[in-house]
Amino acid sequence: MATKETIQILIEGLYSGNKRSLSKLISFVELGDKHSEKIYSSVKDRLGKAMVIGLTGPPGAGKSTLSSSLVSTYRKKSKSIGVLAFDPNSPFTGGAVLGDRVRMQEHYLDSDVFIRSFSNRGASGGLAPVAYDAINLLDAFGFDVILVETVGVGQTELDVINVVDIVLGVVVPEGGDSVQSMKAGLMEIADVFVVNKSDRPGADRMVANIKSTMTLLQNEDVKILKTQANKAIGIDHLAEVVYKIYMDRNFTGLLDSIRQKRRVAAMLDWVRVDLNNKIDLISSQNVDGAAISEIYDKVCIGDLNPRTGANLILGAMLK
Amino acid sequence: MATKETIQILIEGLYSGNKRSLSKLISFVELGDKHSEKIYSSVKDRLGKAMVIGLTGPPGAGKSTLSSSLVSTYRKKSKSIGVLAFDPNSPFTGGAVLGDRVRMQEHYLDSDVFIRSFSNRGASGGLAPVAYDAINLLDAFGFDVILVETVGVGQTELDVINVVDIVLGVVVPEGGDSVQSMKAGLMEIADVFVVNKSDRPGADRMVANIKSTMTLLQNEDVKILKTQANKAIGIDHLAEVVYKIYMDRNFTGLLDSIRQKRRVAAMLDWVRVDLNNKIDLISSQNVDGAAISEIYDKVCIGDLNPRTGANLILGAMLK
Repeated sequence: MATKETIQILIEGLYSGNKRSLSKLISFVELGDKHSEKIYSSVKDRLGKAMVIGLTGPPGAGKSTLSSSLVSTYRKKSKSIGVLAFDPNSPFTGGAVLGDRVRMQEHYLDSDVFIRSFSNRGASGGLAPVAYDAINLLDAFGFDVILVETVGVGQTELDVINVVDIVLGVVVPEGGDSVQSMKAGLMEIADVFVVNKSDRPGADRMVANIKSTMTLLQNEDVKILKTQANKAIGIDHLAEVVYKIYMDRNFTGLLDSIRQKRRVAAMLDWVRVDLNNKIDLISSQNVDGAAISEIYDKVCIGDLNPRTGANLILGAMLK
Repeated sequence: MATKETIQILIEGLYSGNKRSLSKLISFVELGDKHSEKIYSSVKDRLGKAMVIGLTGPPGAGKSTLSSSLVSTYRKKSKSIGVLAFDPNSPFTGGAVLGDRVRMQEHYLDSDVFIRSFSNRGASGGLAPVAYDAINLLDAFGFDVILVETVGVGQTELDVINVVDIVLGVVVPEGGDSVQSMKAGLMEIADVFVVNKSDRPGADRMVANIKSTMTLLQNEDVKILKTQANKAIGIDHLAEVVYKIYMDRNFTGLLDSIRQKRRVAAMLDWVRVDLNNKIDLISSQNVDGAAISEIYDKVCIGDLNPRTGANLILGAMLK
């Protein structure tokens, strides 16, 4: 655990452009370090300059390749860029998808690029607050663009997308299944759809599918673009479209209100994580308080209605 | 809202084999009716006789056809069977998948079959407690087999699977994406994998894939079967395998401990739903209490660290 003094030194390092300091501070927020408040109040006045792009979609859509290609495009424009990659979790795949990160290796040597991978932290979720804090640190460091990459399969991942300025939804032409599984949430929140691997058959049909869905959702403003990230085709155009949306939102004030929502989303996700952790403690019978333990046992053997048990537990927990 | 007297009459109807009474009681538990306690204490002594099978998998795996085919198999064996179908939700698809239910229409006229579809109730989740209560009602009614069908894409759906005796994971041969998206949870909880549509290319490769994953998970006891549900191929064998597992678990006492966990899972899911609803209320600024409102506003404009705000809200909520 860091002392306040360590944090102060790291923040000074951050301000002087030291990436090691940045890395260490991210590790602290990732651990839910109690110095979060200190970090926030130190960086608060430097926030709001970076354009924060979220990039999500089903596994296999080529998100990492697209990220890598976008990084190249922004570097061509002399923009510095930070990438935060939230990988899918599974107790047994661990970081299998980390292999994709290899494609980004060309960028690791570039001093105006910063890449950080995160692994999920299990069912208790909590990616959104970590993403939020990490974005702030990159923003305070001075990156022009921040790219947050996540797999859009579960609620936890969608929560991460709540903390960005602009959402890119990435799909592939043949992704019938993908679109179905996206429907649960992504369809409603993407600002730009990217049909990647668009040299494959079905790309135009996929564009048409998304278009008709957006009409149904009365969401006609959503842009739909085709890319081939592995050949850098369509990426410059994508970056232009994203920038235009960002500037429009900045001009109309929408950006401010998005960022207000982002802060609240991070806060509420944190509340949710903490409450879920409390439930997990009950679940593992790792709870002090004879009252809850007794309710647990009665429900366990079938003596007490689970719903009644839930009400009793809530009564014991809440003010 | 039902009176206690209505509930009593409906329960008497349930015991006399009246399906309308059963239907109405399920509607009450679906609404989170406050008479849940009364219902539970009335049926409690009749519980535990039904074999409860959960059936889950990604969209397009043919779950409804498989359910329908399983129903036919159990009916051939003169077993009565109840089906609880939890459909994917999306604000705009509504009940599109309900079309699949049409395939089950042959069973609707069979008096020893009961089918009930549920739609999701949004992000607040809460399917597991409803599933749990509905299973109890079908069990008390006297069904030999209860089949719970759900789409295994999100945590909410996986929660439903927590309340059954045996879990079938359904996949298709070409489901590369499907297996990846399943990894998040289903892989760990399925007792039997069903590779449906097994006349398609890749079925044996899919079986081998699952087998190697199970070896990795040190879960070699898991059965992997091939079916063609639309032609009823492999379904009788599936039913035999399921029955054998069920009887083994009954014999070893594992079934009892699974059912204890089921009750606790339902209770904790209910706690989770209620807490999440409270968070949603805060999110929509629909909360009484100036304290929380003030925290919300400060976080919103960036004056207060979201994480600090979360801690203050938790302090205001919890005992």
